[in-house]
Amino acid sequence: MNKNIDIAVIGLGVMGANMALNLAERGFSVAAFDINESRRTDIVKRHQPLTAAKLIAVANLAELINQLETPRRIVLSVPAGPVVDIICNDLIAAGLEASDIVVDTGNSQWRDSIARADTYAGKFSFFTCAISGGEVGARFGPSLMPSGDKSAWEWLKPMWQAMSAKVDPITGIEIARTHVDQPLPEGEPCAEYIGPIGSGHFVKMVHNGIEYADMQMIAEVVQFMRQILGMSAVEVGEVFSKWNKGKLQSYLIEITGNILKVVDEATGKPMVDVIMDQAGQKGTGNWTAREALELGVPANAIAESVFARCLSTQKSIRQVGATKLAGPTVTTEDRNVWLEKLADALYCSKICSYAQGFELMSAAQKEHNWTLDYVAIAKIWRAGCVIRAHFLDDISKAYQAEPELLNLMLADRFTTTLAESQMAWREVLAKAIMQGMPMPSISAAMSYYDCYREADSSASLIQAMRDYFGGHTYRRKDQDTSQSFHYDWHFGSGEHKAQH
Amino acid sequence: MNKNIDIAVIGLGVMGANMALNLAERGFSVAAFDINESRRTDIVKRHQPLTAAKLIAVANLAELINQLETPRRIVLSVPAGPVVDIICNDLIAAGLEASDIVVDTGNSQWRDSIARADTYAGKFSFFTCAISGGEVGARFGPSLMPSGDKSAWEWLKPMWQAMSAKVDPITGIEIARTHVDQPLPEGEPCAEYIGPIGSGHFVKMVHNGIEYADMQMIAEVVQFMRQILGMSAVEVGEVFSKWNKGKLQSYLIEITGNILKVVDEATGKPMVDVIMDQAGQKGTGNWTAREALELGVPANAIAESVFARCLSTQKSIRQVGATKLAGPTVTTEDRNVWLEKLADALYCSKICSYAQGFELMSAAQKEHNWTLDYVAIAKIWRAGCVIRAHFLDDISKAYQAEPELLNLMLADRFTTTLAESQMAWREVLAKAIMQGMPMPSISAAMSYYDCYREADSSASLIQAMRDYFGGHTYRRKDQDTSQSFHYDWHFGSGEHKAQH
Repeated sequence: MNKNIDIAVIGLGVMGANMALNLAERGFSVAAFDINESRRTDIVKRHQPLTAAKLIAVANLAELINQLETPRRIVLSVPAGPVVDIICNDLIAAGLEASDIVVDTGNSQWRDSIARADTYAGKFSFFTCAISGGEVGARFGPSLMPSGDKSAWEWLKPMWQAMSAKVDPITGIEIARTHVDQPLPEGEPCAEYIGPIGSGHFVKMVHNGIEYADMQMIAEVVQFMRQILGMSAVEVGEVFSKWNKGKLQSYLIEITGNILKVVDEATGKPMVDVIMDQAGQKGTGNWTAREALELGVPANAIAESVFARCLSTQKSIRQVGATKLAGPTVTTEDRNVWLEKLADALYCSKICSYAQGFELMSAAQKEHNWTLDYVAIAKIWRAGCVIRAHFLDDISKAYQAEPELLNLMLADRFTTTLAESQMAWREVLAKAIMQGMPMPSISAAMSYYDCYREADSSASLIQAMRDYFGGHTYRRKDQDTSQSFHYDWHFGSGEHKAQH
Repeated sequence: MNKNIDIAVIGLGVMGANMALNLAERGFSVAAFDINESRRTDIVKRHQPLTAAKLIAVANLAELINQLETPRRIVLSVPAGPVVDIICNDLIAAGLEASDIVVDTGNSQWRDSIARADTYAGKFSFFTCAISGGEVGARFGPSLMPSGDKSAWEWLKPMWQAMSAKVDPITGIEIARTHVDQPLPEGEPCAEYIGPIGSGHFVKMVHNGIEYADMQMIAEVVQFMRQILGMSAVEVGEVFSKWNKGKLQSYLIEITGNILKVVDEATGKPMVDVIMDQAGQKGTGNWTAREALELGVPANAIAESVFARCLSTQKSIRQVGATKLAGPTVTTEDRNVWLEKLADALYCSKICSYAQGFELMSAAQKEHNWTLDYVAIAKIWRAGCVIRAHFLDDISKAYQAEPELLNLMLADRFTTTLAESQMAWREVLAKAIMQGMPMPSISAAMSYYDCYREADSSASLIQAMRDYFGGHTYRRKDQDTSQSFHYDWHFGSGEHKAQH
């Protein structure tokens, strides 16, 4: 046995196989294993000459252990859940050593990762690397969010940064590669150390929450164009392709443009009209919303995008609702008036949902004593991942300019845009409401924005009610806020200081 | 020792003491205990002659056990959490028997109650009774949501129904009592068996989630009147007192009217303007929103009311936001035009948030194999509790008329009102948006309503995107929905059936 292979990949599903090929293409020698024998042999057969030089399949974990340079680097690309632990234990049985590093790249819950690092402490270094970018990203350059022991990261870093997506350091734009015939891009890598175990998957979870909101907001704007502006799917698709060249440039805008232009062969209808309107979810958006509640972060635009997917599945009730719930008369509006306003509404709403995502990370880092680098995180997300966009370069610059930013909306570069666009945003939403068209995430973003514009809010009344029916006490605006008061609402005997 | 005392109450804080007095006044003999000696002696001293006849203080748990008729009925009114288990174990040590019943009335998490019933199985019957109505309710008639073994309920029922709030069976309106000099009301009791252990506290949790939404929506409407209609606190209070005589009649509307008329003695300002606008929360609203996410129920109006409280605590950021985030110019609108519309907006939004609460119970009962009686639950909530309102009588009638109702909004009695009021609701919300005033919960309710009016929704696009970037597949509207499809978006080679 050679003991000179650089890294192993366990699990040769689409993601694992593509990461293995990506690493091999970047010059690292890779030992690949899957419990399914045909997957092991297929990957070698199908990807000559790359695999002849750099990628070998191994028949079992003992062989894999024996082939690797030490400390060993082993990537797991297996379904989140018990399989991760089964393989970790099999690896220990096969001879894994304490200095070796196992990197879970699955869609694990971040708290599970923390628990695993405890479980395997002393046996090997359990590390995680959240990955975004889907199949294509894994093959040609994903966005990577590694977390675990810093010393393990130093040992992984060259490979991670090599296989990640790359950004042009001058323009902040992705240097895309989607095919083997294209040259390997060089530039700023979308892979930076996030922090202690769990933090990388937390950050990835937030990424997915933001992704849910991005998708929902786009869907709302598309619906406005089709229902209220009377545009065809193709016409809307063309608007999105145009938008992809401006401030809204992003992967999700790009693919929306592409999707809307596809015609279903069987029916001749726009493909999007044939697809069942029941949105699935794998859970990470839902986790994000629950985490926001747990940490007390008002991530309402993200939560609304999760609720919208839940609601979409109730199609049979919606069909009844469509016949029984009254709405306004719908009129067709002039697209020349509204298209620019819709772009503004989408952009403003996007600022809010990203603000919510970054606030969530901020609350988590306080709670868990992490030190998250928002500039680095925004940079990692500029390319490779689903939410990749030029917008993320703006966010990284905002945090670079003001590291102590209280909220992303308050960055100078965004307050200016919001000031220019907020009236259009309001008009879009008011129009949708008057026309009976729901925009749950864009509405939530608007509420979020306007709530942050209130130095004095209606929460005073809520505190008064809580004190009235439950004696929960309140603080006064004109007194030391460490002092609580109770008012005797029932018998009118006035206010007194509450005991602690 | 007598062994003829009917029931014991452990924990003589305000809630426990008031329940003990309530039970004694209803003719049951009560043994009261608190670890704090002065609380034990105080309750007896301060409530003569009631206590001489029916209420005794006991010095320790052994004495308490000895005094009680068997099977023993023991009410815990102690803080949720470890204290509950400490006392349960002390009671076992003091001689509690397997047939005895311990009723936790604290604010416990419903899952903890299920775990406790398992822990104490065979040692005694662990039962729970969620209680709403605050101090006054506990004393004169709370709303009670008991759950646990049905056989234990039979033994508790007469006492529970005696001490609960009462409703006039003809009018559906609470027969209120708030003072000892008033006669004991008789009528339909607000205490019915909810179901297996955990279900009562789940239902109470939903009650609190609805309460959060009610409070938030009221606060939004009050803010509209003050900011956009330029009304004083007292003027708004008078509107609420008037509304309390109409379709919006409810305890929270009533106390809002009362609160807004209170003037702070120290400053001469409306009390509500002096109270710090940072809303506290004890967690039950937050649990409701998280449970909604976990069960996939789109309870967005409830979630927004939780997020609004979270956001309110960030006053220092709001103060910066008020100077840096642009808004529209605010103009004063004519109250004669808007007050009726506001009542409509509040009423419609309320239908939606209650629909969300009932949907949440519906999802939970499927998940946990409960059989919840919505008619009974709505009836229990008609009096005694914080959300008590004539509206709940309408809800009970809606479920009575249509037991298989798909969603509360779809009940005939509500679709009619919604049809009459939906335009006013839209106008209010559109006006608030154009004036820069946030209405997060009312907005969410509107989105919820309009989402349920869509037979075909924008979720098709979301599914298309998921298939595009993640190969997540989709179903077709024109095909058997058990069949999944994948479209090759990248290379245009068309659609194919996906393997399962």
